Amino acid sequence: MRAAPGDGGRSARPGSRLLLGATAALVVLLGSIASIAQVEGPPPQACDKPTRSLSLFAEQLGPKRFGYGLTPSTASIPGPTLEMLEGECLAVTLVNETDRRLSMHAHGVDYTVASDGTPMNHGCVAPGHARTYVFAAHAPTTRPDGSLEPGSAGYWHYHDHCMGGSHGTEGIRSGLFGAFIVRRPGDPVPDVPTFVVTMGPGMTIDLLKAPDTPVFEAAQGQRVEFEVIGYGDLFHTFHLHGHRWVDDRTGLPSGPDDPTPVIDNRTVGPADSFGFQVIAGEGVGPGAWMYHCHVQGHADAGMSGIFLVTTPNGQVTPAAAAALRRWRESEPHDHRM
Amino acid sequence: MRAAPGDGGRSARPGSRLLLGATAALVVLLGSIASIAQVEGPPPQACDKPTRSLSLFAEQLGPKRFGYGLTPSTASIPGPTLEMLEGECLAVTLVNETDRRLSMHAHGVDYTVASDGTPMNHGCVAPGHARTYVFAAHAPTTRPDGSLEPGSAGYWHYHDHCMGGSHGTEGIRSGLFGAFIVRRPGDPVPDVPTFVVTMGPGMTIDLLKAPDTPVFEAAQGQRVEFEVIGYGDLFHTFHLHGHRWVDDRTGLPSGPDDPTPVIDNRTVGPADSFGFQVIAGEGVGPGAWMYHCHVQGHADAGMSGIFLVTTPNGQVTPAAAAALRRWRESEPHDHRM
Amino acid sequence: MRAAPGDGGRSARPGSRLLLGATAALVVLLGSIASIAQVEGPPPQACDKPTRSLSLFAEQLGPKRFGYGLTPSTASIPGPTLEMLEGECLAVTLVNETDRRLSMHAHGVDYTVASDGTPMNHGCVAPGHARTYVFAAHAPTTRPDGSLEPGSAGYWHYHDHCMGGSHGTEGIRSGLFGAFIVRRPGDPVPDVPTFVVTMGPGMTIDLLKAPDTPVFEAAQGQRVEFEVIGYGDLFHTFHLHGHRWVDDRTGLPSGPDDPTPVIDNRTVGPADSFGFQVIAGEGVGPGAWMYHCHVQGHADAGMSGIFLVTTPNGQVTPAAAAALRRWRESEPHDHRM
Repeated sequence: MRAAPGDGGRSARPGSRLLLGATAALVVLLGSIASIAQVEGPPPQACDKPTRSLSLFAEQLGPKRFGYGLTPSTASIPGPTLEMLEGECLAVTLVNETDRRLSMHAHGVDYTVASDGTPMNHGCVAPGHARTYVFAAHAPTTRPDGSLEPGSAGYWHYHDHCMGGSHGTEGIRSGLFGAFIVRRPGDPVPDVPTFVVTMGPGMTIDLLKAPDTPVFEAAQGQRVEFEVIGYGDLFHTFHLHGHRWVDDRTGLPSGPDDPTPVIDNRTVGPADSFGFQVIAGEGVGPGAWMYHCHVQGHADAGMSGIFLVTTPNGQVTPAAAAALRRWRESEPHDHRM
Repeated sequence: MRAAPGDGGRSARPGSRLLLGATAALVVLLGSIASIAQVEGPPPQACDKPTRSLSLFAEQLGPKRFGYGLTPSTASIPGPTLEMLEGECLAVTLVNETDRRLSMHAHGVDYTVASDGTPMNHGCVAPGHARTYVFAAHAPTTRPDGSLEPGSAGYWHYHDHCMGGSHGTEGIRSGLFGAFIVRRPGDPVPDVPTFVVTMGPGMTIDLLKAPDTPVFEAAQGQRVEFEVIGYGDLFHTFHLHGHRWVDDRTGLPSGPDDPTPVIDNRTVGPADSFGFQVIAGEGVGPGAWMYHCHVQGHADAGMSGIFLVTTPNGQVTPAAAAALRRWRESEPHDHRM
Repeated sequence: MRAAPGDGGRSARPGSRLLLGATAALVVLLGSIASIAQVEGPPPQACDKPTRSLSLFAEQLGPKRFGYGLTPSTASIPGPTLEMLEGECLAVTLVNETDRRLSMHAHGVDYTVASDGTPMNHGCVAPGHARTYVFAAHAPTTRPDGSLEPGSAGYWHYHDHCMGGSHGTEGIRSGLFGAFIVRRPGDPVPDVPTFVVTMGPGMTIDLLKAPDTPVFEAAQGQRVEFEVIGYGDLFHTFHLHGHRWVDDRTGLPSGPDDPTPVIDNRTVGPADSFGFQVIAGEGVGPGAWMYHCHVQGHADAGMSGIFLVTTPNGQVTPAAAAALRRWRESEPHDHRM
């Protein structure tokens, strides 16, 4: 059984590459997972004892394409959406089935330097190794001095911080990222899985270009949730047709006189993230509603997708079907007329 | 009388161009307007019956320059500022007097796919044709499940979504955009027409460079309103000298302890928009106050203009007149010393 | 005794350059300061009588490097952090010890056109001259019409607006900028001096690249304050590891149900600024926590620094010392593996 080294990156050399098949990997991993608690230092201060745990398998998906998955051979881009409730303590064991050094760095949640996921804090995982990161989500708290510590709830994300340099630039460029949502008890939850829109790296959505970008589907009246995350070197703006949201923590108004702006377009810089819930087709009906980067050159280069709102009983209207067809035919670049 | 086709773009060919004089256009338009209700499909769900209607005339203003106007031959860049109150339903008949396919896509308000203004939803208007879009503005509403739907009030905008591709990139680049303000009953209104600052496309303000950019004038003590909108491929920052605003829906504080940031500089990405009201010269007096993009290279390239605050009785102070003169002489690029 | 001319820039020619030694400068300055009140026009409306005053000495620090300092020969990049309380009126005498025309333009506070610091408003200071700018910070106020004027409290900044053109582009590029914090009475104050992070011009932090960028140090449990300011032509995102803040005026929640987003990453455009307070290592412990621009290419080019949290009694943990060493060795570009 091989231990998870403190700094996988430093000791790893190209020669140490292990070409693991799925079965072999699993065996190695189970071993690695079991050993984590002993290998790591003192329990992270962020939380004493994980209340929940999961594994994240990093795999190569193709040339210059890597992804995370919850089980072996299910890696995707973006990776699985992780969720926590404020008050939880989550242990995530990252299993590196690739031949590259990589890690997981989380935004928003609490973690000690041991779970920072950076080369400088010895947070990388060498090829064929595993490592457990521990993340805490805390409720808003009153400090001894009477001031308030804000809670962890938010539309956060996680990504590699090791591949190709100190900042994980190559890992991010290759697909090693995903949404990480922390909810406050009582927050409304969506009726369908969260729609994750990663803008960038480059002029892509989830590393794809239209018409291969996601078509998110919901029935009119369903509560749906978007999370938008930026990556890479470019700045984008996220625009959704026919729907708007409040520019706050949840996208929902805190009352009828809430002075927060209601928006349908937002600047998204690298590693910025936000989320919101809307009622599909509320006040506007079913149809194929475009979401896209509103940087014109980016939209024209393929940064658009579709939010497909069906009738309440789940039927795609003929107009929506036709619109979807036209979108697929015209993207990524329609310069007719 | 020619009907407004469902998809003007698909059937339109360069050969169908109609060179309409102002008079001819008006005749055609009145006819088109009358026919709209029959040609369109079922009433849009966004609102059953328009409470108000207006026409928007798209015209070519020069080489690569197009604009919208409320009457024939009055098109401008930006187009006319449209205003609604929450609770209103507005029908806008877009009359295309150009020889290019184009549309109107609105941000923020409610509309069905029939009023989406996109090629994919058959929302374009062929040259010489007209089409009516219907927009609703709704008040904050409590849903049956007890959650709140935010209201439509906001500093929104509208723009072409058809010319030169699926995203209207050429239309936007040519001037087909304008402000679209939705007010909540009770919102304060400015004493003078809203100052609309469109940043971009390119390094322009309202497609102009200093010193040809707008000089907005108000008397000290007047309540004035700015709306700032981004377009194109570049990101900008809007800065106003001598005045600040609250970064919320109205630019006004909701109370003395409002924790929202007060700002005088804001990032503006493509299709981002915001607005605010200030009292001209409040606490700082009359003068020529610069507004500009704070991206240094953009400011130096001509992205600046003047907010000219006169004395309360409307006189331009000698200092302001001299400053205005110096600004005009030195822009767009003063590299002396 | 030489008077401070109304427009130093116009009358200044390269021939007027004065090479002042520190002693000579001080003599000239004291004279200049004394003369300011007579030379300037009517008292600025922003406030009748300064309640406090200070001098700011502009000096050349090297080729293409200039800075501001509170005393002669102490200029730095960024310049000294200025602080005001709402209700104060501050007179800042800018003493130009360089051979270039320059100024001070402040964001956020109140000032008349005489203190605008722009060429167009005759606000530049010629080489060897001095000039006093007057700034007011006001509390939230109820206007005669019942509406509210927001207060001046905020994380603002100041910078040159004259060197190299109408917008001070060369002065900003060379280091003529600093933080300007206005507090509301009752606002909590940090336990250590504010950490100022200027992002840009270019791909720099405080005009430096890692590993020469600031290492900010605090003991676990101390209340620390960051102010982040953007400059130049590029857009950045500021990310801090292990700590988050509320995206409002102070970075602190206004209550346990505050709906404002909690963030650890924010877009920073040129002249955007924001600040926040956090408790060092709260819930995460001591360590070397990276802060960096999350634009990947910018981070890789050196836009990162360290927030070094020691133990409560001020000791750097071995892990933090090692991490700091690794960061110094690997920056600005670690492409190993």
